[in-house]
Amino acid sequence: MMQQAAIALGVPLRLLAEAPDVSAAQVVPDCTVGDYRDLDTLRAATAGCAVVTFDHEHVPTEHLHALIADGVACRPGPAALVHAQDKAVMRQRLAAIGIPCPRYRLVTGVAEVTHFAAEGGWPVVLKATRGGYDGKGVWVVSSPEQARRVLEPQSGSPSQLLVEERVTFRRELAALVARSPSGQCAAYPVVESVQRDGVCHEVVAPAPGLSAHTSAAAQHIALRIAAELDVTGLLAVELFETVDGRLLVNELAMRPHNTGHWTIDTAVTSQFENHLRAVLDLPLGSPRPRAPWTVMVNVLGAQVGDLYDGLPHVFAHDPALRVHLYGKEVRPGRKVGHVTAYGVDLVEVRARARHGAAWLRGDLDE
Amino acid sequence: MMQQAAIALGVPLRLLAEAPDVSAAQVVPDCTVGDYRDLDTLRAATAGCAVVTFDHEHVPTEHLHALIADGVACRPGPAALVHAQDKAVMRQRLAAIGIPCPRYRLVTGVAEVTHFAAEGGWPVVLKATRGGYDGKGVWVVSSPEQARRVLEPQSGSPSQLLVEERVTFRRELAALVARSPSGQCAAYPVVESVQRDGVCHEVVAPAPGLSAHTSAAAQHIALRIAAELDVTGLLAVELFETVDGRLLVNELAMRPHNTGHWTIDTAVTSQFENHLRAVLDLPLGSPRPRAPWTVMVNVLGAQVGDLYDGLPHVFAHDPALRVHLYGKEVRPGRKVGHVTAYGVDLVEVRARARHGAAWLRGDLDE
Repeated sequence: MMQQAAIALGVPLRLLAEAPDVSAAQVVPDCTVGDYRDLDTLRAATAGCAVVTFDHEHVPTEHLHALIADGVACRPGPAALVHAQDKAVMRQRLAAIGIPCPRYRLVTGVAEVTHFAAEGGWPVVLKATRGGYDGKGVWVVSSPEQARRVLEPQSGSPSQLLVEERVTFRRELAALVARSPSGQCAAYPVVESVQRDGVCHEVVAPAPGLSAHTSAAAQHIALRIAAELDVTGLLAVELFETVDGRLLVNELAMRPHNTGHWTIDTAVTSQFENHLRAVLDLPLGSPRPRAPWTVMVNVLGAQVGDLYDGLPHVFAHDPALRVHLYGKEVRPGRKVGHVTAYGVDLVEVRARARHGAAWLRGDLDE
Repeated sequence: MMQQAAIALGVPLRLLAEAPDVSAAQVVPDCTVGDYRDLDTLRAATAGCAVVTFDHEHVPTEHLHALIADGVACRPGPAALVHAQDKAVMRQRLAAIGIPCPRYRLVTGVAEVTHFAAEGGWPVVLKATRGGYDGKGVWVVSSPEQARRVLEPQSGSPSQLLVEERVTFRRELAALVARSPSGQCAAYPVVESVQRDGVCHEVVAPAPGLSAHTSAAAQHIALRIAAELDVTGLLAVELFETVDGRLLVNELAMRPHNTGHWTIDTAVTSQFENHLRAVLDLPLGSPRPRAPWTVMVNVLGAQVGDLYDGLPHVFAHDPALRVHLYGKEVRPGRKVGHVTAYGVDLVEVRARARHGAAWLRGDLDE
């Protein structure tokens, strides 16, 4: 999807791909297949590039420091990116600058977890500080015994876990901002994201019924984090809206994010174009929405092998539906595409998006 | 730009490019460089493709007949495409099915031109039947002597020219339709195109002040031609609106067309996506406009060598402007990009688009 934006800007992308068949490698001619954890591979792939950026956060920061020493511009830089790689670093930094977060502690043993739970009660949430994704690396535990089962695999090594209060939230929100090296920022409307089993299923833009005050507060949090951490490019801040109306930061991502895919079809400037404009230090595009309501629903892999087979019905049923297929092999639970509907009636827009996604994944009951 | 649409649909493109550095070759990994006039090259490039389509009309129809005999689906097919290749075939066919065209005759010598002018008066328009493009192959002549100068280079060969009345038109319009093999059609709003020296400079969607009756008549002409000629994919019909309110067909194009570039940013479905959906016989997307007014202005090569240098000002000046750069080397008069503005006030929208295009081409007076 970043290639679509790069084509419009006339900006040539060079890709370092993990495997020859990943989505991006199917559409970027200047492609090297290699391991992003290998510094020599990174050096060869980035030689001569004006800017290096990312569609995930996993490139080791020590390698990015080495590239910068070579004179390569990395955006976001490693000092920012580490906050999206390591939840312990992120929590400590956000706490230090006064950003509201769930109550947390770094733990290595069950005793510390039990001590933490004694203050706020069970259940609590255990999180791996690194490598978690789409619900992996997150465990809700209700007793010392359950905590032990999570901690035991780690017990051989000196690794840390994060324990956090289990927030009773009304819903999850996401605030997306773009920030350029010269400090210009663009804040997209705050959206509601609906998760199932830790995986984003649906995004509604803007978040329905969100007060102007809370919306501005969420944008302010994202803008403040972007500035304090010197983020360049996109920053997605996932937030809990608690039942008593507070906002607590859950996660950070520093790249175009699933909660911003709706912008491709209904923001004046998509998150992908603004990510490129930001890392190139070009003035940012308007993040304004072009429709009163937009609903994006992910297409997760299920029983249907070829998503293309669903297109005749889906397109005939709804000529205004926007469909995005990623060219990935379909595997159960894998994000293989998304659909976007927009319009003036939220109930209708949501039903259209859900129908399209359900049909594409082969779930004809929805 | 077709690659952007193909990415969304998850449809892999294979490209036969004229040269390794053309725009499409920069963004389509599966690319062969070769001559589209060579049947063996065409056979090799199209082997195994579900559908073959085009971004120009110049592939020899005899080669397309050969591919079809091999079992390759060519959309549009040669029987339709010949009408976009040969103006004599086009005029004769449109006349036969009663589509209003300028008065015309096929000529080989000055005497015939003079005879034609005797009926309607000088000046008349001479057109090469094949190979014309962006004003090339079209001559306005005011006397037998001027006609002789055009005809003389042809006199060695038995080639024909078309002579047409010079239409006194109020303006030029374009009607764009997509048509699928199963006969479904989608008609975009009729636009006004502003030409300079035979080159499209500006497109306004919809055509300002066009009556509902004339708009429907133009769409009806395009739909009728698409059906009668069995066009698959996009058909652009360029029309004259005469001072006395008649519509006369000027040219046909069977591919995504410059007069439809506005659809990328402000139609529900872009012309590129609908071209792909049509040739794949997928149901067509809504051609509805998403803004009251859209103005597209071409960026023609001028004194500025690198268009990218204009982006900081253009983007800062107008965060809602949509810019499309084609990655082409800048040469005087060459179409190297376009900009699109949209909104509710036509005067303002047009000024924004003109400013952006002028700045990118280095013309700071506009």
